[in-house]
This record gives sequence, C-alpha cells and structure tokens, in this order.
Amino acid sequence: MIYKRINAEGLAHLSYFIGSENEAVIIDPRRDCQIYIDIAKQEDVKIQYIFETHRNEDYVIGSLELAQLTGAEIYHGPWPDFKYGHKLKDGQEFYVGNLKVFAIHTPGHTPGCMSYAFADLTSGEAAIFVCTGDTLFVSDVGRTDFGGLEKRRKWSENLYNSIFNKLLPLGDHVILCPAHGSGSVCGGNIAKREWSTLGLERLMNPLLQLSKEQFIEQKVNEHHEIPPYFRKMEQYNLEGPPVLRNLPEPKLLSPTEFQKLMDKDAVVVDTRTPPAFGSAHINGSYSIWLEGLPMFAGWVLPYDQSILLVLKERDQLETVVRYLFRMGYDMIEGYILGVETWYTEALPLKHLGLLTVQDLKTRLEKDNDLTLLDVRSDEEWNSEHIEGAIHLYVGHIEEHINKILTDQTTAVICRIGTRASLGASILQQKGYTDIHVVLGGMVAWQNAGYTITKQ
Amino acid sequence: MIYKRINAEGLAHLSYFIGSENEAVIIDPRRDCQIYIDIAKQEDVKIQYIFETHRNEDYVIGSLELAQLTGAEIYHGPWPDFKYGHKLKDGQEFYVGNLKVFAIHTPGHTPGCMSYAFADLTSGEAAIFVCTGDTLFVSDVGRTDFGGLEKRRKWSENLYNSIFNKLLPLGDHVILCPAHGSGSVCGGNIAKREWSTLGLERLMNPLLQLSKEQFIEQKVNEHHEIPPYFRKMEQYNLEGPPVLRNLPEPKLLSPTEFQKLMDKDAVVVDTRTPPAFGSAHINGSYSIWLEGLPMFAGWVLPYDQSILLVLKERDQLETVVRYLFRMGYDMIEGYILGVETWYTEALPLKHLGLLTVQDLKTRLEKDNDLTLLDVRSDEEWNSEHIEGAIHLYVGHIEEHINKILTDQTTAVICRIGTRASLGASILQQKGYTDIHVVLGGMVAWQNAGYTITKQ
Amino acid sequence: MIYKRINAEGLAHLSYFIGSENEAVIIDPRRDCQIYIDIAKQEDVKIQYIFETHRNEDYVIGSLELAQLTGAEIYHGPWPDFKYGHKLKDGQEFYVGNLKVFAIHTPGHTPGCMSYAFADLTSGEAAIFVCTGDTLFVSDVGRTDFGGLEKRRKWSENLYNSIFNKLLPLGDHVILCPAHGSGSVCGGNIAKREWSTLGLERLMNPLLQLSKEQFIEQKVNEHHEIPPYFRKMEQYNLEGPPVLRNLPEPKLLSPTEFQKLMDKDAVVVDTRTPPAFGSAHINGSYSIWLEGLPMFAGWVLPYDQSILLVLKERDQLETVVRYLFRMGYDMIEGYILGVETWYTEALPLKHLGLLTVQDLKTRLEKDNDLTLLDVRSDEEWNSEHIEGAIHLYVGHIEEHINKILTDQTTAVICRIGTRASLGASILQQKGYTDIHVVLGGMVAWQNAGYTITKQ
Amino acid sequence: MIYKRINAEGLAHLSYFIGSENEAVIIDPRRDCQIYIDIAKQEDVKIQYIFETHRNEDYVIGSLELAQLTGAEIYHGPWPDFKYGHKLKDGQEFYVGNLKVFAIHTPGHTPGCMSYAFADLTSGEAAIFVCTGDTLFVSDVGRTDFGGLEKRRKWSENLYNSIFNKLLPLGDHVILCPAHGSGSVCGGNIAKREWSTLGLERLMNPLLQLSKEQFIEQKVNEHHEIPPYFRKMEQYNLEGPPVLRNLPEPKLLSPTEFQKLMDKDAVVVDTRTPPAFGSAHINGSYSIWLEGLPMFAGWVLPYDQSILLVLKERDQLETVVRYLFRMGYDMIEGYILGVETWYTEALPLKHLGLLTVQDLKTRLEKDNDLTLLDVRSDEEWNSEHIEGAIHLYVGHIEEHINKILTDQTTAVICRIGTRASLGASILQQKGYTDIHVVLGGMVAWQNAGYTITKQ
Repeated sequence: MIYKRINAEGLAHLSYFIGSENEAVIIDPRRDCQIYIDIAKQEDVKIQYIFETHRNEDYVIGSLELAQLTGAEIYHGPWPDFKYGHKLKDGQEFYVGNLKVFAIHTPGHTPGCMSYAFADLTSGEAAIFVCTGDTLFVSDVGRTDFGGLEKRRKWSENLYNSIFNKLLPLGDHVILCPAHGSGSVCGGNIAKREWSTLGLERLMNPLLQLSKEQFIEQKVNEHHEIPPYFRKMEQYNLEGPPVLRNLPEPKLLSPTEFQKLMDKDAVVVDTRTPPAFGSAHINGSYSIWLEGLPMFAGWVLPYDQSILLVLKERDQLETVVRYLFRMGYDMIEGYILGVETWYTEALPLKHLGLLTVQDLKTRLEKDNDLTLLDVRSDEEWNSEHIEGAIHLYVGHIEEHINKILTDQTTAVICRIGTRASLGASILQQKGYTDIHVVLGGMVAWQNAGYTITKQ
Repeated sequence: MIYKRINAEGLAHLSYFIGSENEAVIIDPRRDCQIYIDIAKQEDVKIQYIFETHRNEDYVIGSLELAQLTGAEIYHGPWPDFKYGHKLKDGQEFYVGNLKVFAIHTPGHTPGCMSYAFADLTSGEAAIFVCTGDTLFVSDVGRTDFGGLEKRRKWSENLYNSIFNKLLPLGDHVILCPAHGSGSVCGGNIAKREWSTLGLERLMNPLLQLSKEQFIEQKVNEHHEIPPYFRKMEQYNLEGPPVLRNLPEPKLLSPTEFQKLMDKDAVVVDTRTPPAFGSAHINGSYSIWLEGLPMFAGWVLPYDQSILLVLKERDQLETVVRYLFRMGYDMIEGYILGVETWYTEALPLKHLGLLTVQDLKTRLEKDNDLTLLDVRSDEEWNSEHIEGAIHLYVGHIEEHINKILTDQTTAVICRIGTRASLGASILQQKGYTDIHVVLGGMVAWQNAGYTITKQ
Repeated sequence: MIYKRINAEGLAHLSYFIGSENEAVIIDPRRDCQIYIDIAKQEDVKIQYIFETHRNEDYVIGSLELAQLTGAEIYHGPWPDFKYGHKLKDGQEFYVGNLKVFAIHTPGHTPGCMSYAFADLTSGEAAIFVCTGDTLFVSDVGRTDFGGLEKRRKWSENLYNSIFNKLLPLGDHVILCPAHGSGSVCGGNIAKREWSTLGLERLMNPLLQLSKEQFIEQKVNEHHEIPPYFRKMEQYNLEGPPVLRNLPEPKLLSPTEFQKLMDKDAVVVDTRTPPAFGSAHINGSYSIWLEGLPMFAGWVLPYDQSILLVLKERDQLETVVRYLFRMGYDMIEGYILGVETWYTEALPLKHLGLLTVQDLKTRLEKDNDLTLLDVRSDEEWNSEHIEGAIHLYVGHIEEHINKILTDQTTAVICRIGTRASLGASILQQKGYTDIHVVLGGMVAWQNAGYTITKQ
Repeated sequence: MIYKRINAEGLAHLSYFIGSENEAVIIDPRRDCQIYIDIAKQEDVKIQYIFETHRNEDYVIGSLELAQLTGAEIYHGPWPDFKYGHKLKDGQEFYVGNLKVFAIHTPGHTPGCMSYAFADLTSGEAAIFVCTGDTLFVSDVGRTDFGGLEKRRKWSENLYNSIFNKLLPLGDHVILCPAHGSGSVCGGNIAKREWSTLGLERLMNPLLQLSKEQFIEQKVNEHHEIPPYFRKMEQYNLEGPPVLRNLPEPKLLSPTEFQKLMDKDAVVVDTRTPPAFGSAHINGSYSIWLEGLPMFAGWVLPYDQSILLVLKERDQLETVVRYLFRMGYDMIEGYILGVETWYTEALPLKHLGLLTVQDLKTRLEKDNDLTLLDVRSDEEWNSEHIEGAIHLYVGHIEEHINKILTDQTTAVICRIGTRASLGASILQQKGYTDIHVVLGGMVAWQNAGYTITKQ
C-alpha cells in the first residue's frame, strides 16, 4: 500500500496519493501536478480516480490538469453544479487495488463537502484512513462563513452533524487526513502536529469538546477574512480552470525590458526582506516576502495584468512561480535579481524609512505628529497593541485608505515587520510619502521590554 | 513536530526520528546512522535521547555509533544487563520539546522489551504514537522463541499481557509504530500496509482475535528459524558493537588481487541473478541475490574471514555494504563487477545446470536418478510441493548435508529460483558435481499447469 | 567565452557548444539535443546558429530538432543538396558575441565537408579553435570510401589538399575540435587523447607524415565496413529526420504484453552480458551488450519493426534509448528487466553453450566435428587467429550465412566474447542449434598461453 | 587520457588533474581538495604526484592536505627552501601512465617557479600541454613585485627569459595551462577566454609583442596591491599549512549566541548586498559581498580572531566557507541568516546612508560639506573620476584613515557600490558617523550622463 501526503507549502494544502497494487487515487490534487505523475511512475501504478473533497476557495484545484495528463476520472460532491467530472452519491464505493473507498457526504464547510474513507481489504473492512477535506482538521474544524450571514448558522449545524454523526462513528482508530495543515487561511488554529486520528480529535480537538449549541454559537461568531482572490478561485474550481500543462517560465529581464513591461501596466512584486526593500525598491512595487505570497498576494494582485518579480535569488523563482500559479496567477512575465542592475543603470528608486523599536520609542515620545499604524489582524490587535496606535488590517488598506490621515509621518507595525512592509508599500503607491516600517514589530517591542496595552 | 519513519530495506527494520522544537529522540537506530544526523541538521534539532525497544537479534543496533557522533544518551529496558547506556524503569517519563514520552515495560518478545508512547502537550495528554518494538506489529505480534523451549510459554503469556494490559489500554486512537514491516524475519505475517493504530490492531490483527489460551497456544507452536548470526547480534547488542564511524569501503579488485585474497581464506558472495551465476561463477562462491542478503547472508557467512563480492553493477555496492554492515560483517575487502574480467584473464570458472520447469518435467518423467531437492521453508513445503521431492530448508543445508545423497544428479527448487541458487552453490562447495537450479521454481511449475501435492 | 565539448558516448561523436556574450553556436548537434538547451539556459545565452560539418553517415543529426526548439538557423556545406537549412560559401563569416567564425570548405571525406575556425576578437584575429568534422581527427583522418570505388582516389586527394592547403595553414597554434573521438566507426585509429592542436597533428599524426602520393595510396587501400544503417542515416540527414521533441519512452512490460508484441513482429534486443544471455534468453533475441549498441545495432535492426528490450537494470534504459534514438530507431516499444519474470511465467527460453578457453582447448583437441568461427574484423583476423578457425565478420553473418556449415557443433569466438555472443544469437535465429560462445575470446586464449597463428 | 581543469572561483585559481592509465598528477591543488579525490575515484586512478608551480601568495596550497589523504608525493621548485616535499631539478622527468612530464625551471614571478610540460608517448615526444603557473597567463604574464623594489628588474628580466627561452621554444602547438584565469589578483589583464596555446600567446599576448627592454620596463613600472594576508600565505606555503581534512562547519547561531561570540572579540563579515547592509546591520561588521570575499577578506580579516558571518541565504554558507578556508581563515565559528532574527530580538542595529547617483548629484550641487571618497584602485581613479572627489583605495582605508577628514558627511563611491559599502563599513567602525554609500557607483553616474574627469 502506498500512502503519500503532499504538502503544498505556503498554502499548507495537503493532498494525498493513495495506492494499492497497480492502482492509485489522488485526493484534492494541487495545480502543479507533476508530483503525482512522478510518484505514479516511480511506484509503477496508474492513477484511476481523482476525488475532490469540495470546491476549494483558496487555491486552484489541479483535477483537470491531472486528468488530462493521466486519463483519471474526476469525482466531486453534490454541490455546486460542477461543469466537469462526475457527481458522487453519499455512500458510493470504489475499489482501488486491495482498497475499498467509501465516499461520505459531510456538508458544513460547504453544502457539497465529501469525505473519503479507505479500508484495506487484506486486513478487513475497518476504515484505516479518512480524508476529511475542510470538514475536520487536526485541532480545528472548517470555516462556515462562505455562504454569507444568513446561511452561517445552518452550515455550522451541518458541520456539527457531519463530524459527530458521519465521521466520528467510523471509530477512534481511523487516521485523519485533512486538506490543510498549520498555517492555512482555512483554519486558524490547526495544530502544528501533522498526525492525528478520529479518536485523538474526539478527545482533544477544542471544538469537539463543546455542546452542539456551543459549537454552533462559536462557529457563527468566529471572525475570518475573505481575500478578494477567493472569488476567482470559486469560479475557476466550479467551471474548471485553464489547463496549462507547464508552469509559467518567467524570463530574466534587463532593467530596460522590465521597465517597458511596467509601462504596459505590469504589476511588480518584490519578495526581498523588509530591510532590503525599504532601503531601495522600484517605484510602485508591492513588498511581499516569499512565505507571505500564498497569504497576501491574493489581496493585492489583479488577474488581468502581467506580473513582474524582484527576487533575492534565482533559486527562489520556482517557489514564487508555484505559489502564484496555485492561486491562478498565470501571467508572470519576468524577473530581476535584486535592484543592483536597476540602480547601476541609474534608474530611479524609492525607499521607506526603517525604524528599530528603539527608534520608534524615541519618536513616539518626542513627536506629536507620528501616526503609528498597526496592520495586524483584528484578533492580534484585540489581544494587545501599543497605546495610541490606530488599526487597519493590511488586507483592507487598499479599500479603506481613506481611514488613514495623509499628511503625517506614518510608522507601520505588525508582528515582526513583514506585513508592515507590505502595508507601507501600499501606502507609498497611494501617494503617501513619509512612511516608515518598524523592523521586528510587536515582537521586538515586547522583547525590548516596552509597554503594551491588553484588552 | 517532526515524525520520520526510516525503513532499513531488506531487514524491513523501522526506526523513528521524533522531534519537537529543537529536540529529538531516535527509537532503535540502525547502524549506518548518518541518516539521523542528516535529518537533525536539516531540521535544525539536537538528538537528545536514543531509546531502544529491546536487545535486537536480527541486526546490529546503531545506538553506540549514533551516541558517539551526537552525544545523545542511550536508554534500554531492564533485561539483559546491557554494558552501555542507562536502564529504564516502567513508567519513566521524558520531555522532548512539547512532547512527553512514557517508557512502558512490555515483556514477552524478550523479558526487557520496552514500548514508548508520545503525547503532544500542545494538544493534551492523550498518546499520539506508540513505538512498540517487536511487541506488536501491523497484523502480527513478536516471536517468543528466543528464550528456548522451557521459557516459551511464559514469554508468550507475558506478550499477551503486555499487549492487552499495557498497550491496548492506551486507546484505539494511538498510531502504531512497530520495529518491523513486512518482510522481516521477526514476524512472518506482518501486513504490507505500513499504517495502523491500536484500534485497528484490536479489531483486525488475527492474533488479537484469539482468547488468551489460544494466543499462547499458537505462539508456543509457531515455527521460526534462528539463523546462526543471531547469536553474534545478541552478543554485539548486549556488549556494544564495534563503532566504525564510516561504512567499509571495499575496493574494485583485479582478478589477480581478488584471487590472492581468496587464497588467504576470503569468502566470496555473488549477488548476480541465478541464470548469470549458474552460467559462470567463481569456484566456491555463494549465490545470494541482492534482496536476499539480509535474510540469508547470516546463515552462511562467517565473522572471522574477509568477504569478497561479485556484483552485477557498481551502483549495487553501497546497498550490499549497508546490508552486510547492519548484520555486523565489517571485513568487506573488495569486489569485482561480473565475471567478465575473470574469464578474460583465463581464470577458471564453475557453472551450474539451469533447468526450466519444462526441462524439469521432462527429466523427472525420464530419469530415475534425478533427486529433486526443495529448499523452501517448512511452512511452504507443508502447504504444497512436487511429489517425489525431498525437503531441506536452505539454511540447514550446510549443517545437514549428510541428509542428501551425493552421487546423483540433483535439481534444486524453491519458490522462484533464488534460494535454489544459494542451495546449489552450497552443494557445489561441498563437492557435489551434477547440480541444477530450477529457474522460476514452484511458481513457474504451477504457472505451467503441472501437478502439485498439497497436504 | 563558453567552450563545451559534448561527447555522445558509444558513437564517440563530439559536438561543440561555443558561445560569447549572450550568443552561441552549436557544431554538429546530436539528436537528443536537450543538453544544448540546458547549457544555454544555465549560461544565459541564445543559440543563434547550428553549423553542420557534413552530411553524417553514422548518426541522425539533431539540427532540425534543435532548430525547432530554439529558432536557431542551420548552415551546411555545398554538398549534397540538403532539403533544409542554408548553404554556405567557402570563406563565409559570422559573428557570435566577440567571436568571428570562418566557414572553410574542406572536401575529401565528402565533397561538401566544412570546417569552422573561431577567432576571439578581444585578443586578435588569429584562430583559436577549428572544428574539423570528419576531415581531421586526433592522430587520424576521415574515411574516403563513401563515394564508392571510382571516386575514392579523387576524394582522398581532396582530403589531402584540404588538410595541407586549408587547415594546417591556419597555424600550429590552433586547437583541434574534431567530430569524433576514439571508438568511432568513422576513424579506426583515433587517439584516446582528446586534446590536440594543428601543430601536434602536423608533427605526430601518422597520416600527415606521408607524402601526398603515399597518403592517397593508403587512403585508397584502407578497409572499412559500411553497416547497412548508414544508408538510412544518409537519407535522414539529407532530407531532415523526423522531429520527435522527446526521447521515446518504452514501457515496462509484463511477459504476456512482451510476447504479444513479439507476435506482432517486434524485434528483441538483449543487452545483458554474454554469460547471462547464454544461460537463458528469449527465443529470437539479439545479444548486443550495452556499449556495443552504437556499433552493432545498425547491422541487424530494421527500421520498420518495433523494438523490444531485455535489460539488466532499469537505469540502463535511458542509455539504450539514447543510443538507438541517435541511430534513428524511434519505435522502441517496451522492455523487461532480465528474464526472471519470463521464466517465472513458465514461458520458454533458449540457451547457448558457454565455453571457457580451457573448455575450447579440450574440445578442439578431442573433437573433430567442432567448427570454430571467428567473427572479428578482417584486420584482427589477419593479425592473428587460432589455427583451424574459419572467419566471417559478425556484421556479415546474416548476409553470408551460407558460408558457414550448418550441421556441426559451432563455437563462436571474438576478442573477448561480446561480438561472439551477438554472432551466436544470429546463428541461433537462423536455425543453428548447437552453438557455443567462447567466454573471454582471443584475449583469454592468449592469457592462457595457448598458441596462435600470426600472418 | 584524463584532463580536468579545476577552477576555484573567486580566486580564479586553476589547478589541473592530469591522468593516464591508472595514474594521475595534480598541479597546484587547492586546499579544499576533496574534488581531486572524487575525480580519482570516479576515473579509477591513483594520484601519484603533486607538482607545485611555485610558493603561492594568494591562497593556501592544498598539497599537504591532499598528500595526507592520498599518499601522493609533493614536488616543488628550488626556491624558497620548502619545509616539506621534494626539490626538483630543471629538466627532471616523470612518467605517469603513457605521459612523460618535464619539469622546467622558469624563474621570474619568483626565483623558484616551475613549469610542467606533458607529452603523450602514444603519439610521440612533442609536448601537448604545459602548466605555466604564474609565469604565463592567457594574454598576461606574472607579477614580478614580490621580491621588493631592488629585485624587481632582475625578476622581470628572468621572466622574459623564461618565457622566450624556455616556454615558447616548446612550440606554437602546446596548449597553455596557467594557474589563474580572469579575475585573479595575480594578473590584472588575464583574458576571459580560458583556452590558449603557446602560439596564440606568441602572436597575441600584448606583453609578448614588446622588446625585452620594453617588457622589463613595463613590468618594473606596473602597479600592484599586496594585501596583508599574502604574508600569511607565503608563510603557510613555505612551512606547510595546518591540515584540517574537513572544511570548518560554522553553526547557525541565535542572536544571543552570536553576540556572546562578538563580545569575545569575534569579527563579523556581512555578505549581503549594499542596500541590505546599508539599511540595517550589526555594529562593527564588515560589508563584503560574496564574490568580493577572495579579493577583499584578506585586507581586513585577522587570523587570530574568530569569524562570524551574516549571510543572505543558507546555501551561500559553503561558498563563503570555501573562500575563507582557501585563504587560511579556519576559525569560522557561526552564522546568522539576515538580520531579521537580530532586530526581532530588539538588538541594536546600525545603518548607512544610501544614495542614488541622482541623490549624489543633488547633494554635490547643494552641500559644501559633502566629502566624496572614491575607493577604487589607482588605475581606475587615474583613468576617470568625479571632480572634487578624494581618492583612497579601499584596501588602504584602515591603514591611512588619517588621510580622511572626520567631521564631514562622507559619501563613498566605487565602480558599482560594493567596495564602497566595504569602505563605508570600515569608516563606520572607526567611528565616523555620517557615511553614505553611492549605489551603482561610477557606472551609474556615467549611465545617468553626468560629467566625469579624465586625466
């Protein structure tokens, strides 16, 4: 029996390659799907089925891409009305080598969510694994807010029922295979531990310790952000995304070629660190650090403009391209390495102020006119912040720019400085001129022993 | 949390690298232990502890080797009286990052067997994993025959108690981490599936479906082979084996150099396929195919003579060296690739007869003087064989050579031809001259539709 | 400046990647041309031109394949009338970064042969390298026999003139870049040393020490074989071969699938060693050892039948496929690894007798009816052989099978046993039944101290 | 025949692995010498001899290291009086496989310089290659200034004689194998082209076009820098450097561990780009970009203090360690990646001003008090500079700090900004406070179309 969990880092998206004898199934394939084909070749098996647990919101599903390359058949749940693949019935069974697969309808996160349980018939009929998609995670459960306010209570109740009446009855002994690990936007409190069983969740998952009423109340009142790109993902995954067969191959550009594409309305993403970005960057570029791309690119990047990259190193290129490709950004035209070639050509650069927390403290004590803008999430702000700061989540700056005063010196702070750099780059694009980034953010502030306000 | 299962192929020995934050423990390290150091480096953790589940019989434990390279502390169970490391108490606890480790005394396979359960304190106190050594496998349990006939019933009862009173009470939800997978000499019926939980074993492990009396009776009556090298392993693992720090590096030899070492009493192992071996091989060499080395080298190779290799390809060298090193064969002096250089130097060669099953059928029908020697295990022989064949397990040929008639043409058969080739090479060494190997063995015989006798 | 010599092993074909600044040219690309694209990517250069030195006879030129993938322009000499690319004039110049390239018409090996000299303009106008195709090798010169008997004298004279009047005048200091290294069928005495200069050839190349008359006489009287596949190469390279873009990907077959394809007239090539082949092989298969494929596949394999492979190891697959692909064999359908699966399915096998030289000696002394067939080249046979043997070059066996007696036991011998195994496999295909291969061949015979006849 | 040129990037140091049959010699091995052992293993040859061309000044020779690992014998020229290895005589001969090696005394660069010519006896006695050390490069010749002023003329004359009377007479046809390529401190005008012959040098090397008198005059008047570490190299290479057997393995440090080592007098080298360094760096660190290490580390780093690294990426670690190790810096204790962990711990940072050339222009036009310090070489300064700037070579800043005014704003400029960043970091260490780096340097200044002064 073959069992491989494939972690698409950044998205913390987990897909599964499960095989027996010469056959295999893939659960929720990612879009850069060569990895499944490579495993199939190496293990000498044929991919028969692709099972989707639900219409995903946070990434482009790779089912169509993989189906075209392998001839595998795609299966979905009963909602929404997918434009490709086959619709499953609750309880439908499949055989893959010595494995028996049961499709289980587990609505809640969405009305069409499916789980897939696997029995190894050489041992017996008891389920070994269950792939639970966004229904049940390690220490967390799925979001129930995608249907809007009016449906949220009903979806939350469905989720409770799916977990307690459909999944847990499979038995404590079943190994849990969720669609996301720690770090995903689809579940804020997913544990860092990757391994669990239904029994462990029954015993220790905080949500599963609540009564049905408590569970529903908590799910209805949770706060989640919905980045704008989710709408594109929903559309793609409903209708079938473009099938590219290969990753985009952006080219190394000269500064002149780069600027020509900028003049044609290309958007620039700079993945260097906040100090490097702050010291010198191309006018109009977004500062998004490498690991932040899956979480924040979807807040600011458009789908109808070319994308250009400023990278620290060439060997980051593939990772950046994979991150963007998984979110449906296919028009990645080119890149430059650092800004050295740029300034050597005497092309103009912008900079941001860079403040250590010591600098910030001094400035706050001295200057009346310094605005301190905290761009962390509502939860983070609510738990603690610096007195006198104002708050606007980094994802909302573009939309709610009018909430921020324009003529003052502004210092942007977040947890460690990365989101602050993105926030500052957005402000600078909007015409703000005296913008500073606090290096090290709230963590450095607290490490320095400075006072914070807790609510 | 880091969880890596390391499979030493051939032995089907499983060791575990389990870490949290910047700390890690290794369970039952293999002797070629660089792999743990590499993982530690890559994950940026320090190996704190080495936990042994028991004095192993089938391989050299790598604890001392790894301890010297990392400074980690070694812990064993209360039996035997190990000459190195620390002795554990039942219930002793350790903390590794966010993990809590419980040492559990689970005697049965040996009186000193330990299991180790891991809780992730960021989630709670429930055990996530349990490392069970040779106590409990996927679909099988440990052998109880190493104490000899008189202790076998007691050890079997202990094993039952350890499983039912110590392990299963941890809960159905606990993921099973045994010391061996399918293919090990330490459990003949281990499932091919690698993943299981205590609940799955409770429900489906055939041994755990028996009553205590039935369980003991079955364990007492099971038949197991004890290859001679086990005694060396027990001594090594009790006293601490030689610490080499590096794998032996045998040299590519000219035929002349090779023969000089043979003249000094070196033993030759030829890992080519049965047809290649049969057609031309060096006088006195053992035919042991690559994958068969961990199972059969220990039946025939001495510890006090140099070992020379005849390999099909240079890239098999590392695998062969690892296999032998894990079994304590450290004096691997050199190798040649095939026998082409040998015969080009006009050095003498031996050959064996090679029979297809069609040839065998014809010969059996025609010749009165053909002895057909079946060298499979007792279980295989008992379940089915060719009428008129005689039986002697391949591991016993050297010792019981007198049971076989000497002056007749002899055809050696096994399941597919590999053990037959080893058996034939032993007979040839002992002076038998008219020896044939049946290519394809019993499987080919049955695929050809010929008659077999079932008991 | 970038200078890479790419050696297509087996053919001993040398191609060159020469670049400067962001531009590059390729001289005589091989058909599996991804290697040039990889270098171009890594060096960040664009391949502008593909220069062919001549219509090759021994392999499929990769120009069209590479041109389609890169957009580079193809240039040839003035003969024959190529169906693709551009025709060069003697003395035509090109600029590639800081390099100046001179095309020099150097007829002789063929009437259209070109050489290409490179100057580095940053240093001056003197030529640094010259790519001489099949005109001048290290210690040898090109063949002049492809135009047939009547043109041979003229072509030989042309070759002399090209070397002495066109190449050597470039100066002793010019580094020599020929199209073949040691082991090629295109020059029997090419030195093993890869590096030379025009001056070194002038001083030490044996052919260049001769007078013009001596040179022509020697070239006219040289003996060369022309394997049948050369005709296909000439046609391909004249008209443009099929462009495949990818190497064929033969599949691992079950014995049943393999036999089905054999029933549809597929040809089987077995690349295992002579002892392995001799002991057990599939009926009708050719025995061609891996390194012998480029030299011997073209004597026996057809272009209009599928090819199946029997390989020793999976990791030989790519090499075998490359070797065959370079010779235009594109229909490689599948492979099996060894014959173990074959005989385990109880499918029928053939074998050959295997004789050591000791066995051969005994047989020759005892048996009157043993035919010893020597299949080495005319040159080898003429220089020395075993008394009483008969001679027929391995490449001519299929055509001249009638020259060999059929009803006798036949032992086939060559230098070390590999060509003998091919020869024996051909005889067996033709219905000969009592065929033996002499392991170690003439080398072993002499190493054993047995008598040979020298002429 | 095996011919491998090994380029130690950074130093642009070329060593050679030359072998025949089963033997090989190494010319001028680098200190991280595993590469030669790997080639020897792969090619199945034994390294017999190590030939040094001279006592090197710019790197630690790896002869002792390699000799200990392989048992090879070391040979040097007759000067200085080496404390290890064997002394050669002019004309001494060695045989290596089919190669004949001639040791040729070619004084000039130093009195003991040797060259080594190789003939391939299978072709004849003419030399194929000559390894010329620092005597003759592609388009340049060796320095003659290491003996001090009084010996310079004599050494220059010796060099002329060695080239014209010892090397060129070997013949135009001999392939040139010098000890350095383009980018070395040992020859400022070495061509980028790697391949040459004695004939090409005779025809095109600018120095070889001069009369003897002109040659000597030019060599006597050339300007070269002598970085302080050269003295250490000379001592090491005379007496034999420490043999470490392995590269140092610096550890990833926490900011706290890092600072503790700084408190114990460790020196910090920051290899990030000038903008990243300028925006935020650890107090007291040297800014030396990766590729600049071999050229500039030896100007500032001591041999008796530990070295700590600030790296952009973990995968630069090995390169940095090799660079330093080759220069004899063995005490490399640890590293951190970027300064993010540093400022997150609220540890203090320094910054430098960063000026685009546009900023510089504006400042120069406006401010009377801006000192513009040009830290390029004398040659660069002499050929062109910005009016009003002052000049001090970056390597001389520490020694001649008193030449620079202290109380003014200072902008540091070089060709593109990297040496300026090093210069600025030295000034900052010396207590200067208002220091700026000109990004893009003179190249950007000229690309912007601003005025320069040419002499």
